[in-house]
Amino acid sequence: MDKKIKAAVVGATGYAGAELVRLLLTHPAAELTGISSVSFEGKEISEVYPSFKKLGLPTLTDEDTAIEGADVVFAALPHGLSELLAEKCAASGTLLIDLGADFRLADEDEYSEWYKKPFDKPELHSGAVYALPELFRDEIRGAKIIANPGCYPTAAGLALYPALKLGLIGKSGIIIDAKSGVTGAGRSLTQNTHYPETNESISAYKVGAHRHTPEIEQTVSRAAGEHINVVFVPHLLPVNRGIEETIYCRLTTDMTEDEIRAAYVDFYKDEPFVRIEAKGVSAQIRNVARSNYCDISIHMDKRTGMLILCSCIDNMVKGAAGQAIQNMNLYFGLDEGTGIDTVPAPF
Amino acid sequence: MDKKIKAAVVGATGYAGAELVRLLLTHPAAELTGISSVSFEGKEISEVYPSFKKLGLPTLTDEDTAIEGADVVFAALPHGLSELLAEKCAASGTLLIDLGADFRLADEDEYSEWYKKPFDKPELHSGAVYALPELFRDEIRGAKIIANPGCYPTAAGLALYPALKLGLIGKSGIIIDAKSGVTGAGRSLTQNTHYPETNESISAYKVGAHRHTPEIEQTVSRAAGEHINVVFVPHLLPVNRGIEETIYCRLTTDMTEDEIRAAYVDFYKDEPFVRIEAKGVSAQIRNVARSNYCDISIHMDKRTGMLILCSCIDNMVKGAAGQAIQNMNLYFGLDEGTGIDTVPAPF
Amino acid sequence: MDKKIKAAVVGATGYAGAELVRLLLTHPAAELTGISSVSFEGKEISEVYPSFKKLGLPTLTDEDTAIEGADVVFAALPHGLSELLAEKCAASGTLLIDLGADFRLADEDEYSEWYKKPFDKPELHSGAVYALPELFRDEIRGAKIIANPGCYPTAAGLALYPALKLGLIGKSGIIIDAKSGVTGAGRSLTQNTHYPETNESISAYKVGAHRHTPEIEQTVSRAAGEHINVVFVPHLLPVNRGIEETIYCRLTTDMTEDEIRAAYVDFYKDEPFVRIEAKGVSAQIRNVARSNYCDISIHMDKRTGMLILCSCIDNMVKGAAGQAIQNMNLYFGLDEGTGIDTVPAPF
Amino acid sequence: MDKKIKAAVVGATGYAGAELVRLLLTHPAAELTGISSVSFEGKEISEVYPSFKKLGLPTLTDEDTAIEGADVVFAALPHGLSELLAEKCAASGTLLIDLGADFRLADEDEYSEWYKKPFDKPELHSGAVYALPELFRDEIRGAKIIANPGCYPTAAGLALYPALKLGLIGKSGIIIDAKSGVTGAGRSLTQNTHYPETNESISAYKVGAHRHTPEIEQTVSRAAGEHINVVFVPHLLPVNRGIEETIYCRLTTDMTEDEIRAAYVDFYKDEPFVRIEAKGVSAQIRNVARSNYCDISIHMDKRTGMLILCSCIDNMVKGAAGQAIQNMNLYFGLDEGTGIDTVPAPF
Repeated sequence: MDKKIKAAVVGATGYAGAELVRLLLTHPAAELTGISSVSFEGKEISEVYPSFKKLGLPTLTDEDTAIEGADVVFAALPHGLSELLAEKCAASGTLLIDLGADFRLADEDEYSEWYKKPFDKPELHSGAVYALPELFRDEIRGAKIIANPGCYPTAAGLALYPALKLGLIGKSGIIIDAKSGVTGAGRSLTQNTHYPETNESISAYKVGAHRHTPEIEQTVSRAAGEHINVVFVPHLLPVNRGIEETIYCRLTTDMTEDEIRAAYVDFYKDEPFVRIEAKGVSAQIRNVARSNYCDISIHMDKRTGMLILCSCIDNMVKGAAGQAIQNMNLYFGLDEGTGIDTVPAPF
Repeated sequence: MDKKIKAAVVGATGYAGAELVRLLLTHPAAELTGISSVSFEGKEISEVYPSFKKLGLPTLTDEDTAIEGADVVFAALPHGLSELLAEKCAASGTLLIDLGADFRLADEDEYSEWYKKPFDKPELHSGAVYALPELFRDEIRGAKIIANPGCYPTAAGLALYPALKLGLIGKSGIIIDAKSGVTGAGRSLTQNTHYPETNESISAYKVGAHRHTPEIEQTVSRAAGEHINVVFVPHLLPVNRGIEETIYCRLTTDMTEDEIRAAYVDFYKDEPFVRIEAKGVSAQIRNVARSNYCDISIHMDKRTGMLILCSCIDNMVKGAAGQAIQNMNLYFGLDEGTGIDTVPAPF
Repeated sequence: MDKKIKAAVVGATGYAGAELVRLLLTHPAAELTGISSVSFEGKEISEVYPSFKKLGLPTLTDEDTAIEGADVVFAALPHGLSELLAEKCAASGTLLIDLGADFRLADEDEYSEWYKKPFDKPELHSGAVYALPELFRDEIRGAKIIANPGCYPTAAGLALYPALKLGLIGKSGIIIDAKSGVTGAGRSLTQNTHYPETNESISAYKVGAHRHTPEIEQTVSRAAGEHINVVFVPHLLPVNRGIEETIYCRLTTDMTEDEIRAAYVDFYKDEPFVRIEAKGVSAQIRNVARSNYCDISIHMDKRTGMLILCSCIDNMVKGAAGQAIQNMNLYFGLDEGTGIDTVPAPF
Repeated sequence: MDKKIKAAVVGATGYAGAELVRLLLTHPAAELTGISSVSFEGKEISEVYPSFKKLGLPTLTDEDTAIEGADVVFAALPHGLSELLAEKCAASGTLLIDLGADFRLADEDEYSEWYKKPFDKPELHSGAVYALPELFRDEIRGAKIIANPGCYPTAAGLALYPALKLGLIGKSGIIIDAKSGVTGAGRSLTQNTHYPETNESISAYKVGAHRHTPEIEQTVSRAAGEHINVVFVPHLLPVNRGIEETIYCRLTTDMTEDEIRAAYVDFYKDEPFVRIEAKGVSAQIRNVARSNYCDISIHMDKRTGMLILCSCIDNMVKGAAGQAIQNMNLYFGLDEGTGIDTVPAPF
């Protein structure tokens, strides 16, 4: 490739932003031309994260300076701040890849119900695509705004889509018990994420009330061809990275476990980043941590007629920065794995 | 109390055995008169666990020597070995508190199905009581053999019993997503519990096939008045101690969340070791770790008509050694909390 | 004992305060009559720490209300706030056990140098005793103010005192490499103790500049009979509780390792809470966690002529609340282990 | 590069071997042509490590099959097994990069003393080079056998070399207090690395007796120009990866801390993988984990006249597989960072 893609990261000192910086730095076809931060404008990012020292990174600037001349802008902002940035990008014809939630829900009513505010720039939303590459690749290529999926919805969507599309499970009563590493809660300090109160524990939070719920429902409803409600309960897991979701579904097929597994293997046969576990192996976080892979295992409980799916991703990579770069690669016609093909370490 | 209860621990060097030793050592009304171990017979237990040095503990002996003269024998043995010991205890009129599974299931067919062997001494089983004190206190007082409940079934039973007894939830479709600390897997070395392969991960295991399933079903079926099947999926959690179970039930009442919570508070009002969380607080392991408490939180998901219960215990205390001592206290007419009233540390 | 000791905890919602509350609650000869908190006055402590619910604890009040009628006041305050409280206690003849640093250093110059302020109430300091019971028991009985030692100095003092007293090591060049669990940093939120930035890491902090340095030097200088400087470097260890110190000393004796170990065993033969490891065993945190024990191991490096000591305590128990209660027991003539004789769990 | 380097890994299922496989898989100029394992010959490596599934890896074979046709053979074997392999490689003119200890010590007497056996093939040792690239780059280019340094010696050597070379510190009395993540102990199961007995603890091991001691001494002696003894005490740290060493040296210069830091920055100015922390920042594991970087921080304790160095690496990357690939890159004339330029994530 002759010319590198010029990439800017807005909100570079939050965890998702920092992960973008980290991955873009060694991307062979992209160049990090600007990074911005409201809190640390004018400082070196290595003052915030000493792991970034001696790497020749640009200084943190304001948003406008950072995005100038960029081919693609990654937004890693608190929700509610991306629409204004999207307007700027639209004006200059720059691709926006938004890691926040502002453009993920197509239905404004649903958005308002969960986020307690309307769309600020409703006219921009028609150009936005919900960008889970393995499921919606064709739409992404023509997007104006790429709405990068949330972490929990990525793991849930990839696991449930085939079962619903192939009609293997009932459309009601799906239950998603999710466990996420603490980076999912971000860099901001809270009592819940203070080391001594997180370590050696686990607990559910936002039971039945997490904002990723409508996003999961949007994806599985597309697979099912009708609106589906799911029960979604996230838990704070004492690890840095990774999501494990154990998903409980009512079987409606008489296929065997092996046949269902084979159907999944087939469904994802051309997708390098989705891997189906062998019989008897459960998906686990350590097999995907710090990588862009999603591992899914398939278990049948014959006694109760349930299909149980375990789905694991790294919340910061496939659940955020890695998938954002996968979308960039896809949009610009690169191999999707460029720069994000790290093999997960087993330990 | 003039005379102390003479207590022996058979299988004292496994994790449950060591926890019994630890708790009995400071029990004000009991005296540890014998400890046995097949693997370490003749050694000091402080050679196995240096945390027990300088405490004046008896030397590890064989089983017969350890139980001689005891008023109560605690068995912390691999399953299948307690029935012979029970016969010896029966012969000498000694109370047996079995921390294993041999006497937990009343139905021999069910036992055979899950454990792949019949009862060896079927005549002893009529004298055995499934000893969850908060639910079956009266039966325990007259027991000949106390079958101490398993860890997962303790957390599940205490959480589900009131809802089923009071008719708040449907009898089918109950799903238990359980997470357990690694001490639950015992002292034996396995690749799955090797530090670098357990740490910073989580995974489901024995999906739909864990032997605690029939034990949970036995308890909830008693509450429901009819046989109930449950879906039970345990996960290996990277913490030393503690179990969290998130339990999904279909609501069949029109009571509000507050009313259901009040009903639980009332159900357990005389039980010091069962505590119901305030509204908005999720039960979490850190609030019960290294104590005999069971914390339960109650959550209603109105969108989907579900009652979601979170139940936490320490797997080694309320889920094993602590509950065994609670049963001893109950049997011998002591205050149930004697020697096991440690307040959980919040960090 | 007929009448229980009335105990108040000032600063009950910090970590050391909460640990005092936890341990005093089950102390058989003490009664918790008041707890205070500036931040949470008027609230229940179970709102701050749900692990304390359903335990019948008093409501959090202001300091004056909390200490009224108390026989002993425990102060768990930020440094600089205990002298005023000491004045109040002196006025009412109440024993003060101060877990902070205000009364630990006898030399006001040294205090000023490290804490950048003079003594506020210099007249009170003559009644204060540095209360490491195993070393200075006799002085504690007659104290007016008990200055409870810091966590690092407790582990260092107990390890180094015999070697210096018995003349086994040189008085210069002692190096203490210390590692502490994160509860040592307290309940306040900092970026350094945010879970994802603490977990899976370790780092030195306040290298050569930690305020426990002069306190360590004060104790070892008493043993040596002359002023000693030490090199002290603490590290933040990703565990909740516990301190391990590896201490490097120049050997000046021709005793063998076994002889030195025997001398230590003898030195502490009447001290239940200090335990010397067997040959070949290193002291480790898990053998003392959540207990009042201090474990010390002794290693000789003949190649280099060094004596290496490893010393472990639980920073919240022997390093704070447990030792404070040990001092209370000692002062009031109780068995020193009353209420703090928990046996450490090996897992 | 037209033709890729053909690389084989002998001992591919141990932790160092698996890490080599992981990193070589995405190396742009190398191709993994063979992997061997005694324990799992004939199996897929993804059966041992499910994180390697769907990656097109070769099947595990015996050693001879694996190394056939290779340009470079990486040996990740228990010590004592590499000399025979070296003979085979010598016969076929293949470069051997040995991650074990067999070729690290130049002095056979020292080797015999610490490893309790002589060199098996003494004639091969003259062609072996101790390959710490930042210090001994020129020798590595002409090597026949590359002896890849041990993890502890890499961190210690890089930290101490400049201070000794520049004459800033005394040559005697150097003390290295090292803490290593549990992957350093390898994949084999031991009680010490069983999750519940490693987690939430720390302890010293092999005090003054670890086999990395003579290797550290060999490197620092080269810097000093004379033989130096060091005190070396490793600790088992409850994290997966990473080494932190806090190194205590007697200052012999009147340079200020800033001047010493500047001298280090200058010494390593052309070395991308060695980074010196800014004033007031301590090197910590999280800033180098899963990367090939070595971070060093410099602290002066004026009170005691000590220079204190903190040095951090990832034990599996810069301490094993990453440095081995760096050596391969160097030998074959590639940019040294090829394939191992991962930026460390700060969380």
